[in-house]
Amino acid sequence: MLQGHQTWVFDKKPVILSTGTVGGPFEANGNIPRDFDILHDDMWLKQESFEKAQQIMMEEACQVAVKKSPIQKEQVDFFISGDLINQITPTTYAARTLGLPYFGLFNACATSMESLALSAAIINGNGANYILSGASSHNAATEKQFRYPTEYGGQKPPTAQWTVTGAGCALVAKEGEGPMITSATIGKVVDMGMTDPFNMGGAMAPAAVDTIEAHLKERNIDHSYYDLIITGDLAHVGREVSLDLLHKRGINIPPDKYLDCGLTIYRKEQPVLAGASGAACSAVVTYGHFLNLMKHGKIKRILIAATGSLQSPLSVNQGDSIPGIAHAVSIESGSDN
Amino acid sequence: MLQGHQTWVFDKKPVILSTGTVGGPFEANGNIPRDFDILHDDMWLKQESFEKAQQIMMEEACQVAVKKSPIQKEQVDFFISGDLINQITPTTYAARTLGLPYFGLFNACATSMESLALSAAIINGNGANYILSGASSHNAATEKQFRYPTEYGGQKPPTAQWTVTGAGCALVAKEGEGPMITSATIGKVVDMGMTDPFNMGGAMAPAAVDTIEAHLKERNIDHSYYDLIITGDLAHVGREVSLDLLHKRGINIPPDKYLDCGLTIYRKEQPVLAGASGAACSAVVTYGHFLNLMKHGKIKRILIAATGSLQSPLSVNQGDSIPGIAHAVSIESGSDN
Repeated sequence: MLQGHQTWVFDKKPVILSTGTVGGPFEANGNIPRDFDILHDDMWLKQESFEKAQQIMMEEACQVAVKKSPIQKEQVDFFISGDLINQITPTTYAARTLGLPYFGLFNACATSMESLALSAAIINGNGANYILSGASSHNAATEKQFRYPTEYGGQKPPTAQWTVTGAGCALVAKEGEGPMITSATIGKVVDMGMTDPFNMGGAMAPAAVDTIEAHLKERNIDHSYYDLIITGDLAHVGREVSLDLLHKRGINIPPDKYLDCGLTIYRKEQPVLAGASGAACSAVVTYGHFLNLMKHGKIKRILIAATGSLQSPLSVNQGDSIPGIAHAVSIESGSDN
Repeated sequence: MLQGHQTWVFDKKPVILSTGTVGGPFEANGNIPRDFDILHDDMWLKQESFEKAQQIMMEEACQVAVKKSPIQKEQVDFFISGDLINQITPTTYAARTLGLPYFGLFNACATSMESLALSAAIINGNGANYILSGASSHNAATEKQFRYPTEYGGQKPPTAQWTVTGAGCALVAKEGEGPMITSATIGKVVDMGMTDPFNMGGAMAPAAVDTIEAHLKERNIDHSYYDLIITGDLAHVGREVSLDLLHKRGINIPPDKYLDCGLTIYRKEQPVLAGASGAACSAVVTYGHFLNLMKHGKIKRILIAATGSLQSPLSVNQGDSIPGIAHAVSIESGSDN
């Protein structure tokens, strides 16, 4: 399974049996509303806190994924997931509701693909038959924790990003019908010394480039192997930086084949500054939008490089720079096989 | 590899090639100082913050483990680790220093065995040759975040526990000399509705019992298979609760064969209230003390059930109860094989 230094090639080709995607009102008004299974019309979901609303979205994403699959919840072996909130409590309380053996993860907005890579590795090694793999975030819960409560109406620079309210989940299986998880490249922490938490896309771009380059090299393939190479949430600023860096390393992906989940989920008219971010961003856009495109035959092979900026409010206040990471997973259509 | 619903049996028997354990002054003055590779005589390690001191301890634990092994750092495939600090920044900055592909985890004080179980599963499935698996915590960093800065001199009830300052690391390998990782049982979130963050041992006890019971049942073995069954950090209160619960479920482990890392690391005279806790607790006591006992032939088979209480200060303030989890890993002497 290990090929090179940081890449797994899954010879048993685990499949994504089904997915669940949940969003909030801002996502309902966005660019890809039809790619969500559930859209809520308020940020609170009738809960007492934004954190509980996030928990409920994660539970719903899992429930929808199981419901859309041919299996029962009792057949699921593990829940592997994480989020941005301190001590990942929304994920943990969702794990309590699900009642499944649970691995909690934290790699910020790269958690979606950290989880998918681990799920595929465990299944490939006969460690499970079915795993629920996911990530979630909530705009108001995240703003409150990392910046200011949204009610303050704080202003932000144009490099800032908008955290997605949502949850995305994939039901990964050893066998069955669905897109195949063919490989994964696990990222290193890449830190270029940036210290501005309002420019996370810029801080994460070198990590995305590092992981994409390692992936192509270790799999010994050209970027043209993929119909699309999709980053997590670099948004406008980070995407430009990453295209420049890729070019300098001799990787010339045509811009129309190099997309970003953070630039896909919202409409241009929405006030999201540089674009979207949040642990849910790459999860809902991949499991909703891009897997729907694959289902309809429009794409066959994609690489998703989810990006995470791993700072905390404390580490920023202590003057530390912002460490980035990216984990890449390749998903290929199962219909020709 | 999967046996039952939540247990992995590792047919390739990954080995712990070497370990690294680091502690602070309170640990140096404790019950098992000779089981540490490095002991620091101040809490700051000459750093500007307690969080940076924790980071350095994690780096040292990894460096020591590699140094004690026959391999070079460049041969290590992955670093899998986590801690208690928001967004696990001490672990992430250590990952930056190590320069290894990195999986960030969070299952509070159960992170040590979450990491060891995942490392063994990845190696068993041919996903790696060498993995650095660890966990860390720092008393003053944790107190500041979860309760009050230690400088305030806040008082605590006798059910409270003392967070270990330290870091523990195991270098897990596909082949080589060392104790073997033979199986792991992944825990579910167990929440009995307790809300007192000063009695985490009590809150975690049902999770430990749930995982130990599942482990024995799914491996189809009696508790006497193990020389010792060792919980992570239940301390006095949680240990008593868990012995009662085990007894009610027909599992009568003799009290002298049922130990707790949180009751092993400090001397009785130290002012640690109910006992120790912290993500480093089960890591340093297992990788230091118990593996030394195994090396000296005093024990041959142990089960470590690391316990975690997964609340955050926010979830406690929002009135949520304290969810517990326990992950159990069995380690067996390789010398007869």
